Amino acid sequence: MQMAKTPAVFLLIFSTLFISLVSADWNILNQRKRNSVRANLKSYCESWRINVELNNIRGFNVVPQECVEYVKKYMTSSQYKADSERAMEEVKLYISGCCTLRGDGKDAWIFDIDDTLLSTLPYFKKHGFGGNKLNASSLEAWMTESKGPALKHTLSLFHDIKDRGLRIFLISSRKETLRSFTVDNLIKVGYHGWTSLILRGLEDEFMEVKKYQSRVRQRLVDEGYRIWGIVGDQWSSFEGLPGAKRTFKLPNSMYYIA
Amino acid sequence: MQMAKTPAVFLLIFSTLFISLVSADWNILNQRKRNSVRANLKSYCESWRINVELNNIRGFNVVPQECVEYVKKYMTSSQYKADSERAMEEVKLYISGCCTLRGDGKDAWIFDIDDTLLSTLPYFKKHGFGGNKLNASSLEAWMTESKGPALKHTLSLFHDIKDRGLRIFLISSRKETLRSFTVDNLIKVGYHGWTSLILRGLEDEFMEVKKYQSRVRQRLVDEGYRIWGIVGDQWSSFEGLPGAKRTFKLPNSMYYIA
Repeated sequence: MQMAKTPAVFLLIFSTLFISLVSADWNILNQRKRNSVRANLKSYCESWRINVELNNIRGFNVVPQECVEYVKKYMTSSQYKADSERAMEEVKLYISGCCTLRGDGKDAWIFDIDDTLLSTLPYFKKHGFGGNKLNASSLEAWMTESKGPALKHTLSLFHDIKDRGLRIFLISSRKETLRSFTVDNLIKVGYHGWTSLILRGLEDEFMEVKKYQSRVRQRLVDEGYRIWGIVGDQWSSFEGLPGAKRTFKLPNSMYYIA
Repeated sequence: MQMAKTPAVFLLIFSTLFISLVSADWNILNQRKRNSVRANLKSYCESWRINVELNNIRGFNVVPQECVEYVKKYMTSSQYKADSERAMEEVKLYISGCCTLRGDGKDAWIFDIDDTLLSTLPYFKKHGFGGNKLNASSLEAWMTESKGPALKHTLSLFHDIKDRGLRIFLISSRKETLRSFTVDNLIKVGYHGWTSLILRGLEDEFMEVKKYQSRVRQRLVDEGYRIWGIVGDQWSSFEGLPGAKRTFKLPNSMYYIA
């Protein structure tokens, strides 16, 4: 009886061992497959993002569904902060040596507002990080709360530029109806001393933002201003004529404004 | 004697244990520190690269020494290939729907050559990946070997565009003296059927590349061409007037041409 049991026990031990080895291998294979799919997806989304920043991908309505997690990760990362900080450092470097200011009050600098001076991240955190089609009325409702935090490095740059004697113009695609909430928000987080806040009136609303922005710049140039630079998060803030001597783009892969 | 030894042995064991624990902790701490320095450096270099691609950092003579390894890793990575491929896919998407071609032989497309049609990676692999100041005569000597490989996805796009009936203009900052070597190289790797190869003559050599490129475009426009697009790896290939309806930038963080 004892002798008969031995091979059975061996068989049991052997088959258990075999099954666990095979299943371990299977798990490793599956894990590798998952890792490889994840790596491919990361690479795909990274390519998508870099091509948005290169201005090769234009006019997207939503972040591709499979890249929403990636965009969320980037936009809330220390890398996004570091990238933005570096951009603002480059502006400081430029203005420290660029401009022979005439001191006639006609040296101008332009800033975008959203995701340039004020972050919309608190809104997009609750609304799918660009993965849902932009709901203008919901975003505007959020704007009336005046709760957008400052982009720290732009805030510091803003005061630097102002202290050099440049006139600051804020040109935004926000609607004119949001003026008081916008001013409230800006002041609350530390912006003050701009020369003019230009928002979209009724007559500008059906115009491409690119066209609206360049029209405003034309008006400034007609009034004798020299535009030394623009800081914005959208290429449409720089395109068209007249341009600025330099433009500085902050990263933003959550939405696209044409 | 036996009794007296016991505490000594314990002490020895205990202190050995203590030292190895402390040294293990120390190693872990050091490893963490090294990892953190490495992560900070990677993040720093990533910010540098994204700001180059955003056209925020301009006119650099060399890649910052501490980022040469990073640039080498990126430029030889599958990510660089994926990023370039995505850019070329966006061009295909654009030309499939953009252009009402008149069929009068005046629809034009412009390509850069270096790191757009032909890769200079084999050269920069041997010359510090942008970490050394560019040695023009050494680079030009390499160009006379006509050994630049094609950028695979640009090659496929090139023929796509040609097959649609657009005239292809190659505008390069390579010198006129390199013409035969350039043609040789282009043909060897599969490019053929361009309308004109425009290189820098003696009179253009002391001009900014940006200005040279926009002058050539002006000449094309004066000859009645409609420039539907430009593919290049440098912002200077797009800047200035007249512009193209669309521009597509390939990534390149090894060098900057003003």
